[in-house]
Amino acid sequence: MEGADPVDTRTYPAEHLRDFARGVFAHFQVPDEDAALAAEVLSCSDLRGIESHGVARLITYHDMLAAGRINPRPKIRVLRESASTATLDGDNGLGLVVGPRANQTAIHKANFAGTGWVSVCNTNHYGIAGYYVLEALKQDIIGWSMTNTTSLVAPLWGAERMLGTNPIAIGFPGNEEPDIVIDMATCAAAYGKIEIATRRGEAIPGGWAIDADGRETHDPFAMIEDGALLPLGSQREQGGHKGYCLALMVDVLSTVLSGANWGPFAPPFALQQKIPERSVGKGIGHFFGAMRIDSFIDLDEFKSQIDEYVRSLRGTKPAAGTDGPLVPGDPEREAESVRAARGIPLVMPVVEDLQTISRATGVPLD
Amino acid sequence: MEGADPVDTRTYPAEHLRDFARGVFAHFQVPDEDAALAAEVLSCSDLRGIESHGVARLITYHDMLAAGRINPRPKIRVLRESASTATLDGDNGLGLVVGPRANQTAIHKANFAGTGWVSVCNTNHYGIAGYYVLEALKQDIIGWSMTNTTSLVAPLWGAERMLGTNPIAIGFPGNEEPDIVIDMATCAAAYGKIEIATRRGEAIPGGWAIDADGRETHDPFAMIEDGALLPLGSQREQGGHKGYCLALMVDVLSTVLSGANWGPFAPPFALQQKIPERSVGKGIGHFFGAMRIDSFIDLDEFKSQIDEYVRSLRGTKPAAGTDGPLVPGDPEREAESVRAARGIPLVMPVVEDLQTISRATGVPLD
Repeated sequence: MEGADPVDTRTYPAEHLRDFARGVFAHFQVPDEDAALAAEVLSCSDLRGIESHGVARLITYHDMLAAGRINPRPKIRVLRESASTATLDGDNGLGLVVGPRANQTAIHKANFAGTGWVSVCNTNHYGIAGYYVLEALKQDIIGWSMTNTTSLVAPLWGAERMLGTNPIAIGFPGNEEPDIVIDMATCAAAYGKIEIATRRGEAIPGGWAIDADGRETHDPFAMIEDGALLPLGSQREQGGHKGYCLALMVDVLSTVLSGANWGPFAPPFALQQKIPERSVGKGIGHFFGAMRIDSFIDLDEFKSQIDEYVRSLRGTKPAAGTDGPLVPGDPEREAESVRAARGIPLVMPVVEDLQTISRATGVPLD
Repeated sequence: MEGADPVDTRTYPAEHLRDFARGVFAHFQVPDEDAALAAEVLSCSDLRGIESHGVARLITYHDMLAAGRINPRPKIRVLRESASTATLDGDNGLGLVVGPRANQTAIHKANFAGTGWVSVCNTNHYGIAGYYVLEALKQDIIGWSMTNTTSLVAPLWGAERMLGTNPIAIGFPGNEEPDIVIDMATCAAAYGKIEIATRRGEAIPGGWAIDADGRETHDPFAMIEDGALLPLGSQREQGGHKGYCLALMVDVLSTVLSGANWGPFAPPFALQQKIPERSVGKGIGHFFGAMRIDSFIDLDEFKSQIDEYVRSLRGTKPAAGTDGPLVPGDPEREAESVRAARGIPLVMPVVEDLQTISRATGVPLD
């Protein structure tokens, strides 16, 4: 795990953390089934080694629920639908609940119309984009998942935060070989990496961020104070306009198509961050897709070709100094096999957050 | 136009070049309607300033038709379909004909099922990805367009060409403001830029390419001889794994889903390039999507939000030394307004190719 600090950690079994999260959601009157689902999504993230989106975020969900900023018992409404589409209003519920329900709607549509596409407004942070793709893969369906997020990224040649880190996830099932699972933000580097650099007092690499004037910076504080992340591709010469295009694409599909807040108007997922002065829609937005493979080609044929593709990628001549290309999803699969057996190591600030939550809610942690 | 050489050009009216291309296709027994369509796609590229994909490519279409490597009168077949999907076999026809027909199928499906998604095998080079999106936008439909291409790009940490430059295009209609039109290859820099550097004897910037050992190179010849292009994001630290993921996504949707040749097995679009020894499908593949906006949200509401979004992007604080962000599609729109009025400037090597074609086919150029 690059970027990991040599810091104290405490390790918990995944089920233990999942049950804790479930108890916390239930404490805020989230219905049992929804609390279990939300905890499952967080647990998936911890198991796959994407620590930033697991129980490390529980403190924020807790704070938002405690402040009444998230509706614990949403009535999700269908605003519009067709044979292969639906638009949902998440009634300001937990994204960890609205997201999975909307994803199931997409899968359900796909089972009848070949594909299903669902855009969602009035929702909140939905965890890792990859979770939704894994759910679709359980049914041998190609799943797509996108969401907008609080703005952190500058469009190429801009000097302010106008777009979220807007991830794209998609998955393709293999047969004997593992599934291909893509889950990527559309910025060059994660915000978490900037934060780590500030803690360590280190400079950040080129291509990650700009300062308040839009000049590329190696100072992580310059980004955090009044700068922005750069889109994938970073500068014009290396294709920064392309990352900007991708972030914009994810944003429009998730928000303009559903009636959510787009671009710089996405509400923050944190109590202490300022809510944008202008609202152009409801909450944030997600976009899900589901494609039934056998509506295009024989399922077994597809899966055996994916096997061949994976073997072909693994057989690629390695670049000097590397072990050769990974298959998308490899690092997360590896993390999951280790963490399922040995538990989830949490850094002490996260443990302390969970202890705070435990005291506030009465849900026992240890 | 960055990268433009200060070289001699000859300028032709767009209609003149379009009629010439049409005549050349007709010479090879391409039916009249198809010849007009194929010429239209090439002309769109020249008008929008994407010179590499316009009549500059006519010599290759000519050579492939003359050698019997492309079927001038394909019978496009539906291999499988559902309410929102179809898989087509292009019968080894011109991509410039198969592509537009498949795109119309996607739009047709969308009109009934809300969305339409078409994967195509047994086809050839289809021109610019953006053409298909513009066609959908004429009907206020969100169009998607992807294709695989001859392999030129290394997966991150690979030292050989395994993936094409695999473009993604998508468009969103505005009302008073121009449409947002995204059309981007998933590699860091276009192969054409490497070729320009060899002609000029110049080094190439970092992040573009690797040599035969997979080491980043500034020598354009090292890439051309036995190296590869880098994916968008270039190296691991700047997100090169993400560009690799995108190229793979485009490839699977265009080829594994349709039964076309994927990855390194894509047949080349040039007579002199070696055909891969192994075939894993038929021809290359495309993938088209069409989304009826009013199956998600009121069309006027969507378009007026896109207007607001475009104004918001144009109002972004500019980075130091720039005029601020462009809206995706701006450069092509600007090129089109100039070129529609003043004609298409062709560099002399392209003019000479067209003269060669004219002599070979008897279709008059001047």
